[in-house]
Amino acid sequence: MLVTTVEGGLRRRRPDELIVEEPMSIQLDGTLVATTMRTPGHDYELAVGTCFTDGLLGGAPVRGVRYCADGSAVDSEFNVVTVETGGLAPTPTPRLGNTTSSCGLCGTESIDQLCTWLAPLPALDPIPFDVLRDLSDRVLDAQGLFASTGAVHAAAAFSRNGQILLTREDVGRHNAVDKVVGRLLLDGALPATGLGLFVSGRASIELVQKAWAAGFGTLVAVSAPTALAAQTARRAGLTLIGFVRGDRLNVYAPERIGDDPRWGSPTTGA
Amino acid sequence: MLVTTVEGGLRRRRPDELIVEEPMSIQLDGTLVATTMRTPGHDYELAVGTCFTDGLLGGAPVRGVRYCADGSAVDSEFNVVTVETGGLAPTPTPRLGNTTSSCGLCGTESIDQLCTWLAPLPALDPIPFDVLRDLSDRVLDAQGLFASTGAVHAAAAFSRNGQILLTREDVGRHNAVDKVVGRLLLDGALPATGLGLFVSGRASIELVQKAWAAGFGTLVAVSAPTALAAQTARRAGLTLIGFVRGDRLNVYAPERIGDDPRWGSPTTGA
Repeated sequence: MLVTTVEGGLRRRRPDELIVEEPMSIQLDGTLVATTMRTPGHDYELAVGTCFTDGLLGGAPVRGVRYCADGSAVDSEFNVVTVETGGLAPTPTPRLGNTTSSCGLCGTESIDQLCTWLAPLPALDPIPFDVLRDLSDRVLDAQGLFASTGAVHAAAAFSRNGQILLTREDVGRHNAVDKVVGRLLLDGALPATGLGLFVSGRASIELVQKAWAAGFGTLVAVSAPTALAAQTARRAGLTLIGFVRGDRLNVYAPERIGDDPRWGSPTTGA
Repeated sequence: MLVTTVEGGLRRRRPDELIVEEPMSIQLDGTLVATTMRTPGHDYELAVGTCFTDGLLGGAPVRGVRYCADGSAVDSEFNVVTVETGGLAPTPTPRLGNTTSSCGLCGTESIDQLCTWLAPLPALDPIPFDVLRDLSDRVLDAQGLFASTGAVHAAAAFSRNGQILLTREDVGRHNAVDKVVGRLLLDGALPATGLGLFVSGRASIELVQKAWAAGFGTLVAVSAPTALAAQTARRAGLTLIGFVRGDRLNVYAPERIGDDPRWGSPTTGA
């Protein structure tokens, strides 16, 4: 589209590429379970990943994924995706808002709820510090949309030796993560034991939940986590890292790092 | 909480303040209508603003707002807020996900849906360019949480002469906007005709919807809007501005600016 840029008292019209968001509805065995504003592309992965990280599959295998098209060639047909488990997934129940409870929850109770369907992650060696240093730059290199729009989030799965296995972009950070998880699920690569998950921006409890559900041992955010995200990561046994900038980073859930000398020498002081 | 910072091969433990997120459930006349992860504070404004900008009030007046506490002094009581209209608001219907339709929508249809309950904004003179120049810095000055956590979003209402009337912060950008709108509603100051709305970060269609519902004539985002946000702003008659940096900004929905010389001299060229 054409955008007007005003700069130094001058105004000019110029073409600009804006990030696309379109609504997508996700059905599980024919029942609507979610509608999300997403950047089109990797829609099957998004549908499968959303069902999985929200705990809707209940362990059922994904037997198929398809657009809900009837052949009439309307664009909006490609904004409905159905995930099929042949009825093996639990029947979703209608709800108002995004909770199944009508009573109040506090943050600790939210974590307790996650613990009812997610087991603590297995203890593994932490990913070496050196691997995380230039991770952000390398994900950015793999990002096509950000360069042109400056307005899109990215998520990436990476290995212990720092190899970026998979990058997905979306207007929503949670969607980018669901696309990564959905791809791994469709490839039979879950749980993602031993892998790390990278997200641009901040980390909320929702992103920690998704990383935990998929079995990632490490979650790396470019910016800060919330307090609840850090508490949840500790309960999960997930290493949570934020503010990765050059040779500096913060560890918010450090249980796995212990005295590993690759993570620097301990100092004292504030 | 204590965070471990690794820098230059050294590791130290230091105190760090993380942004708080806690779930809050919103009831309208006793029926659960939304649950959102929010930063506690200004909860009544958030509850009222959410009901209003989602179109749930249907024009009904707000007769009361209260925490759903029964006196047992449990923290989570303060995570449920009830908005009362004495039954004058339409009865909310249970739904899956966040749409009321089980068929697919495309972006254009999403805008059409908004047009069924929101009228185009009245034509007004645009806010002068000079007012927008240091808006971001001035909102940041008014922001308490960002300075300490680096991870919180802000929304602010400002007047035509650049005065910042109201600033609210939250872990979610949409919540920060709902807190601003809720405050204005409780003050009897809606529609916000003639005022501008500032948001940190990007602008999605959801934020344009909220600004439109509240009657703001101008929406200013620090970063980029999505394509659908720009299309929606044009339909609404809302001036949408992004990437405000120093004496440079982009106008994505420029209808009101016309040939106003305060917005620079037109030039030609790419």
